[in-house]
This record gives sequence, C-alpha cells and structure tokens, in this order.
Amino acid sequence: MVQKYGGTSVANLDRMRAVAERAVATQREGNDVVVIVSAMAGETNRLLGLAHQITEVPDMREMDALAATGEQVSAALVAMTIHALGGRAKSLLGHQVRIQTDAAFTKARIHTIEGSKVRSTCAEGSIAVVAGFQGADPEGNITTLGRGGSDTSAVAIAAAIKADVCEIYTDVDGVYTTDPNICPSARKIDHISYEEMLELASLGAKVLQIRSVELAMKYGVPIHVRSSFTDTTGTMVTSEEGLEAVVVAGIAYDKSEAKVQLINVPDRPGVVARIFGTLAEKNVSVDMIIQSPSREGGATTDVTFTVAKTDLARCKDLIEQCAREIGGAALEYDPDIVKVSIVGLGMRSHAGVAARMFGILAGEGINIQGITTSEIKVSCIIHSKYTELAVRALHDGFGLDKASAAVGG
Amino acid sequence: MVQKYGGTSVANLDRMRAVAERAVATQREGNDVVVIVSAMAGETNRLLGLAHQITEVPDMREMDALAATGEQVSAALVAMTIHALGGRAKSLLGHQVRIQTDAAFTKARIHTIEGSKVRSTCAEGSIAVVAGFQGADPEGNITTLGRGGSDTSAVAIAAAIKADVCEIYTDVDGVYTTDPNICPSARKIDHISYEEMLELASLGAKVLQIRSVELAMKYGVPIHVRSSFTDTTGTMVTSEEGLEAVVVAGIAYDKSEAKVQLINVPDRPGVVARIFGTLAEKNVSVDMIIQSPSREGGATTDVTFTVAKTDLARCKDLIEQCAREIGGAALEYDPDIVKVSIVGLGMRSHAGVAARMFGILAGEGINIQGITTSEIKVSCIIHSKYTELAVRALHDGFGLDKASAAVGG
Repeated sequence: MVQKYGGTSVANLDRMRAVAERAVATQREGNDVVVIVSAMAGETNRLLGLAHQITEVPDMREMDALAATGEQVSAALVAMTIHALGGRAKSLLGHQVRIQTDAAFTKARIHTIEGSKVRSTCAEGSIAVVAGFQGADPEGNITTLGRGGSDTSAVAIAAAIKADVCEIYTDVDGVYTTDPNICPSARKIDHISYEEMLELASLGAKVLQIRSVELAMKYGVPIHVRSSFTDTTGTMVTSEEGLEAVVVAGIAYDKSEAKVQLINVPDRPGVVARIFGTLAEKNVSVDMIIQSPSREGGATTDVTFTVAKTDLARCKDLIEQCAREIGGAALEYDPDIVKVSIVGLGMRSHAGVAARMFGILAGEGINIQGITTSEIKVSCIIHSKYTELAVRALHDGFGLDKASAAVGG
Repeated sequence: MVQKYGGTSVANLDRMRAVAERAVATQREGNDVVVIVSAMAGETNRLLGLAHQITEVPDMREMDALAATGEQVSAALVAMTIHALGGRAKSLLGHQVRIQTDAAFTKARIHTIEGSKVRSTCAEGSIAVVAGFQGADPEGNITTLGRGGSDTSAVAIAAAIKADVCEIYTDVDGVYTTDPNICPSARKIDHISYEEMLELASLGAKVLQIRSVELAMKYGVPIHVRSSFTDTTGTMVTSEEGLEAVVVAGIAYDKSEAKVQLINVPDRPGVVARIFGTLAEKNVSVDMIIQSPSREGGATTDVTFTVAKTDLARCKDLIEQCAREIGGAALEYDPDIVKVSIVGLGMRSHAGVAARMFGILAGEGINIQGITTSEIKVSCIIHSKYTELAVRALHDGFGLDKASAAVGG
C-alpha cells in the first residue's frame, strides 16, 4: 500500500502526526506501507525564494540540490513521528531508493526505480517513508521531477513494488465533475478511468500531476485520490474495465491558451507545414489547429490555432516573420479565450454528444470560435467571459448535477 | 586548497557572497579550490528543535537525515552564488563525495574518502562546494559526524586530495593563548603543534573540532585557523618540526566535569577495577583518577575521579550500587570544580614546570584538589569559583601576555 501526502498534509508537526497515525494504523491492519511525502507547505517556495534572491536565473543543478532538502526534512520528521508513536519507520531519499532519472534538472523524468530497497524496508517491519519529488541522474547528481512530482514518485514506486493501490492524500476529497468554485452543483466522482482523468487535465492538475496518471495507466496502478483530513472514500482512478461508460464524466476548462489567426493565407501545399514547422522548431507547442475551407476559388484560406499564453510573445515574432515571407496574410491575436471540454468514455458509443454540447452553448447565446475532438473529448473555444456560464450549462445540461444521471446519455 | 566555512560565515546570503568571492578569487590565483560549508547559523538548531518537538528521544538515523539538509542547503546556495559571480561550481553531498563512515548515527567516524569526485570537479574548472558534517554508512544511510563535524570533513577531504593547506574560516581570528573573554592579555598564537592543539582541547573546541586535529596530525595536513571577516593571517596548526618548543603555549580550562569521591574504599586487589569496569561498561567516560595512599595499615583508601557533568546522574546510580556491594565506602560529589591546564611542547625538556604552576596557584591562595600530567600538559582541579583568577595568574605567570616571552621557559 502506497500513501502519498502532499504539502498541506505535512504542513506542520500536528498534521505529520495525523499522517503517522494513519500509516501506523494501515500497517497494523496487515499491510506493507510505503509513505511518500512532499515538502512542508511553503517550504519549497521559501527555498526557491532564497535562490532567487541570489540571482534571477539560478543554476538548475543547484536548484535541485536545494529544493530536494524540503522533502528530505518531511521524510525524516514523519519517520521520527512514527517512531514516537511506537511504530518502526525509515526515511529514504531518491538516490537511496535508486529513483534514476535523466539529467534534465528541475523537470527530470524517471527512467528506472529499484523496488528492492523499499521492499526490504517493509520486510523488516518498517514503514518506508520516501522523500517524493526527487531522484538522481546516472552520475549521482540530485534531480527533481517538477512541481507535483511527488505524485509521480508515488505511482512509480507503487508500480515498482506492485502495490495494490496508490493513495494520493490531498486537501480535497477527490476529483469533481467540474470546478466546484464556479459550479456549485459539481459532484465528487467515485470512479474514473485513466483516459478520462488525462483528458480532464485542467481539473485533475489541481489534485493529480498528469504525468503520474500516464505512469499509472502504463503500469496499471489504481490511484485513490482522497482527503488527508477525513476518512471518506475519494475518487478511484483505474483502467476502464468494469467501469460504467459514462457519456460525460466531467467538464474541464482551460484559460491558459491564446488564439492566433492567420487570415488570407495562400492556399498552396507546404504553406501550413512551413508555419507550424517554424513554431515546432522553436519549441512553441500548438494545441488546437483549425483550417477553414479555401476561399476565392481555392486561392486563400484562414488558419486558426491556440498556443499557451506564456508563449504568445515568442509566437508573434515567429509568425510575423513567416507571414512576411509567405506574403499576403493578415494576423490577429486573442488572449481572451477559454477552452471548455466535455470528457467521457461513453462518447465512443454514443453519437450526437458533440451536437448536444453545441446546442447547449447556443442555447446560452455563446458563440463557438473553434472545435476539436478526440475519441473521448469535445473541446470548444469560446470567449473567456462565458467561462462560468458555459461550464454550469454543460454540467447541468449533461445531467452531472444528478448522481448517475449522465450514465447512458 | 581547501577552505572550510562555519555557520556564522554562511549565516545569510550576504555572508555567502563574501565566501563565494573569496573562493573565486582563490581559484583565479591558480588554485584548485574545494569549499566545505556548515549549515547556516541557527539552521541545525532549528531542525533539531523540530525533532525535539516530536519526541524527547528522536530516532538517531532520522536525526541525521534531518540535520544533513542544513549543509545541503548551504552548499547549493554557495554554489549558486559562485555561478552568479560568473564562476563555476558544483555542490557535492557526503554520499556523492563518498565520505564513507561507520553507522554510529549523530557521531559517525569517517572510514574512507574518495578524492576522485572532488578532483574531477576541480579538473573541469569548477569549485567543489562540499556539504560538511555528513557522510554515508556502507548501507547508504546518511550519517553525521557530530557537532563541529564540518572541520573533520574539511581535513579529511584535504588529506584525500593531498591539499597544501586546509583553511578553517571562523568568526575569530585564530587560536588564543587562553580565553580572551576571561583574560584580557590573551594573545593570538601564530604557530602551534597538533599535539598542543589537542591538549588545548577546551580552547580549541571553540574554533576547531578535536577530531579534525587528530586527523590532520595523522595525515600531516596543515590547518590554518582564520577569520572569514578579515584577510589577516590566523593560527597555523602543523607538526612540531621547525616550531620553537614553547614551554607553555596556552592555558586551557574546562568546567564540564564533576568530581566524585569514594572515601574509605577497602584496599583490596580488584576493587578499583570493579568500580571503573562498571562505569566503562555503561559508557561513562572517566577523565582524571586519583588514588590516595592507603590508610589504617593498608586497609582502606580514597578514590577520586572526574566525569562529565552530563553523566553525573547516571554515574551516581552505578557507583552507589558498587559501593553497597563493596561495602564500607562513603560517597561525595562535587560539581563545582574546574580543570585548569597548562600546555606546551617545551615541558618535555624543562623540569620544574609543574612545580611552578602549583606555586602560582598557591600564591593566589587556591587549593589544588587533584593533579594529572601528560608529557606536554599539567592539569589541576580547583574550585570553580577560582577559574578566572587561576587562568589569569597562570597566563601572565608563564609570560604568555608577552610575545615570545614564554619561549625557553
């Protein structure tokens, strides 16, 4: 049994005591227990704040050596607390568990984990308290996995030791059908598939790091997202087998993108490839791409796409240069957009879901500026001022306010 | 060139900048530079304070995992600061430098150090910034070397890479003939031998960890104790070759011991062995032992010894049990004592130094309660209320207030 506790769950010694009590109780029920901890809430920011007082662009290798101490402190204190409760525990660091990563400091990816150290610690009757978020590259340099990386540590360790479940303890009690802050009728989801969870990224990112879901899907590790403040069951994230194929499982929205339009682009082979090739070369990720049917007897077309708002300035420079070279195209930018998505495995077998979505938005007088679909998701770009209205209308329109109402469409 | 900076020298980002500047300047003079850092002043106490809020007796393995983060933070921040100054640097932790220790958590002893990681870091043009105080046992558990252990790390690394000198930067400008706080005429010593430095433990402990001096002596590493706040030369600690054999190099005092007296102990073979055997078994270290000549026609004797005040309570229990079993002995305890010592290589060849010491104390009306001597040291136990008086009288009586006056006796 792997239990991962986030920063708010180990924010102070009282909270750590609750974590230790839960771990000891779980062990006394006959389980091998592995606890993965984040840094105490605020600690990582305190450390990075020190670094940024030294220089605006601190050395990344040293950032990782610095930041990794946050989880080390948590792990040692939680292990001590378990001892103080009469239990047995050992803190383990990334390099001790041999969480081997690449050398991409501050955003390393896990290559391999040896389960042996964790397993032998459990075998001797101890609770293994593993510092999350950290690993070591092949040369032994300390690396970190990026913000929220402790989720990934937890799932990777759960996979390495073939744990029955990876519990992710956080300050909310599960994954919701949409953001409860803007939709009061949002409900906690009991079961959801990895695929849906990935598509609900913008919801899930608040409680689960996306990479950890990918990893869980790859190795078939069931994730249980739950609150460290209560004992209630949270949300199970598992493979879709045995799950009811809900048509719409949740509504996500994402305000982080901006829209770029190229109007009157010459409709010649290679022109579009040229535009997106330039962006890809400079590492500007493009999300949605919409090419309109050609006009003027096939002479010109319009191309619309979205990029992260943080990339917009860079994107402008590149696109304007492209447009000059291609000739003729006018450019428009719009950061005031939101991408609203409906996600559900049941869409695969139910026709007309997208049409129903468009109908609900139209019913509220919301103009759709762009559409993309995947097998289990439909996303619409709309003006950002309609965010709350659209999310609430879709949520209740697809019956998500009523338990199980959305099943079967 | 190895430079070790204590907690006050890296107490904040400004002080770290001074450390980084000195390291970069030293490198630009053509030296390979290895910097060993302690935790920021106050940080170790903050961390241990957290542990002691959890339990009075925290698990020692976890104490080490916790405390080691203090030096890790310093090392990363100093390395970043060197980068920010345009230099090159890499932080290295105990396990990365392969400082292998035994498994005696919180007071581990170094077994081996590999110089290769430090050397290769220097060879690529980087300053190696090593986290002091820490190592790893053969199983990869993090260990620490005890308070002041960064000095030991520094000397051990200097020995491993055969450095010309190990500079120990601190908040005082060297080793003094005695404690300047109680003797205003105390002077900074320019050169002192390892042997004398070891005997001056109670002075040296404030600026140099004793184990680091033992290690320096073993491997012939010259130590330069100096201030991180100035550029003035401090105290060189080296082998005695080439040093003038000063009769008295310094006056030390130690208030940490308490006196225990067993009166009317039966004077039979094995009785004394029994007493000290019991103490040794329970890890109570005994310092001075004085056995009086037997009385009552050889029937009984008195035994006086000193133990650390912190061990006194445990010692009492053990000794009282012993006394009951042996029968007849009365017990007295006196914590109000001080051990005052004169130290100097020149004593070996100069007779009458001890007698002169007793004369100086007698001249001040100070009663001597016990005496021990070594080849280069004479120690007297006196009432603790005479500490300042005795230190000043001996310091000036042996001419230490006058530069070089003590040479030749």
